[in-house]
Amino acid sequence: MTCAAEQKIADMGWELVPSIPKANYVACIRTGNYLYLSGALPIDADGKMVTGKLGADMSEEEGYQAAKLALLSLLGTIRHEVGTLDNVKKFIKVGGMVNATPDFTKHSLVINGASDALYEWFGPELGKHTRVAAGWSSLPFGVPVEIEMIVELKDNCEAA
Amino acid sequence: MTCAAEQKIADMGWELVPSIPKANYVACIRTGNYLYLSGALPIDADGKMVTGKLGADMSEEEGYQAAKLALLSLLGTIRHEVGTLDNVKKFIKVGGMVNATPDFTKHSLVINGASDALYEWFGPELGKHTRVAAGWSSLPFGVPVEIEMIVELKDNCEAA
Amino acid sequence: MTCAAEQKIADMGWELVPSIPKANYVACIRTGNYLYLSGALPIDADGKMVTGKLGADMSEEEGYQAAKLALLSLLGTIRHEVGTLDNVKKFIKVGGMVNATPDFTKHSLVINGASDALYEWFGPELGKHTRVAAGWSSLPFGVPVEIEMIVELKDNCEAA
Repeated sequence: MTCAAEQKIADMGWELVPSIPKANYVACIRTGNYLYLSGALPIDADGKMVTGKLGADMSEEEGYQAAKLALLSLLGTIRHEVGTLDNVKKFIKVGGMVNATPDFTKHSLVINGASDALYEWFGPELGKHTRVAAGWSSLPFGVPVEIEMIVELKDNCEAA
Repeated sequence: MTCAAEQKIADMGWELVPSIPKANYVACIRTGNYLYLSGALPIDADGKMVTGKLGADMSEEEGYQAAKLALLSLLGTIRHEVGTLDNVKKFIKVGGMVNATPDFTKHSLVINGASDALYEWFGPELGKHTRVAAGWSSLPFGVPVEIEMIVELKDNCEAA
Repeated sequence: MTCAAEQKIADMGWELVPSIPKANYVACIRTGNYLYLSGALPIDADGKMVTGKLGADMSEEEGYQAAKLALLSLLGTIRHEVGTLDNVKKFIKVGGMVNATPDFTKHSLVINGASDALYEWFGPELGKHTRVAAGWSSLPFGVPVEIEMIVELKDNCEAA
């Protein structure tokens, strides 16, 4: 089943690919109607991990795109877990980690890449979310952005 | 309605002002009896954002005060959402982010500004909370402290 | 009561000691069947806090061991709160904070110290968890790793 958000993402030529952890943890855990997602990294269309540090060798616009890619990874994991993004009731929390130099101040502009996408793809009501945007000294594999998420699912939605 | 904690805050001459995000996200989201709050920044009495970095150009005492200001912003958001702080059942989690140099070690003293205030204003039972205190390489707009929170609300409390 | 995981930990000569905060917050808060845990620090067998920074003066193997020690502190807190680790239904979220230099990239290897231990002690089904692994500019007291956690408890489990 393809919902409106999935159609918009497909129309832009983007694919939803679930994250597959390579160590002893999982991409998501469901408890009741809540889905907790592990921190996701930005993977580009060729399957390559995006690297860079804001305030050093990456512009805010590039960081913005990386945030969107990390969000796509999270949405891929959600769809893989519950069959369709139509099963999302609320995006409760977006934790936006920016790999940034000590004097960087525009974390909000970077994480807007994820926030804007949620509003654009899911609309102003369902796309609503709380968030954190802040600067980390370093991130795994040198990625510019890592995003974690908590999602509320619709009642009675079943595992895919 | 003004509860005891609100009275204490008012008696100190402080105002509770809700946070109003300027991008595509919201200050808080309620799910069941839980309220998730976006990371809040320290705003002083004149409405100006406090800036500084611990271990560099800001003392622990100044950081402590900034943590209290960020907490006030969170409390303002909670009251705006549910009408009165009397509707808080538990402060579950305080996420205390300190903008700090690589050799800074006194994050606990800084975030105590928020923890002490919760105990002082809400008392030793209701003021209880779990917390994280750690050092970020940089924070939005150069603020010294950002705080996120999860709160449990009383049963049947209605939106304001 | 000693469950299988506790036995494995004891067989390795390790003790489960609950964390006792020295400021105005608590080590854990229960809400419904969920237990939220404050960020825990690595304490060695002699009760001394481990210090160091990844990418500077500490190897990944030492960081891995520190992550295991921080996890032990969290498990000690859980057991203290609900009597036995047998009352854990799910490890929902492990938040792994690594004290790291700006060019460090192997946060995953460090936090594997906690993830591997969960799989080894609780088995591949119960040991499952989501996680975040990232680099902080500094951590309290100069510790190399701090870990926070959310746990789901079995229905009707009572406080110890």
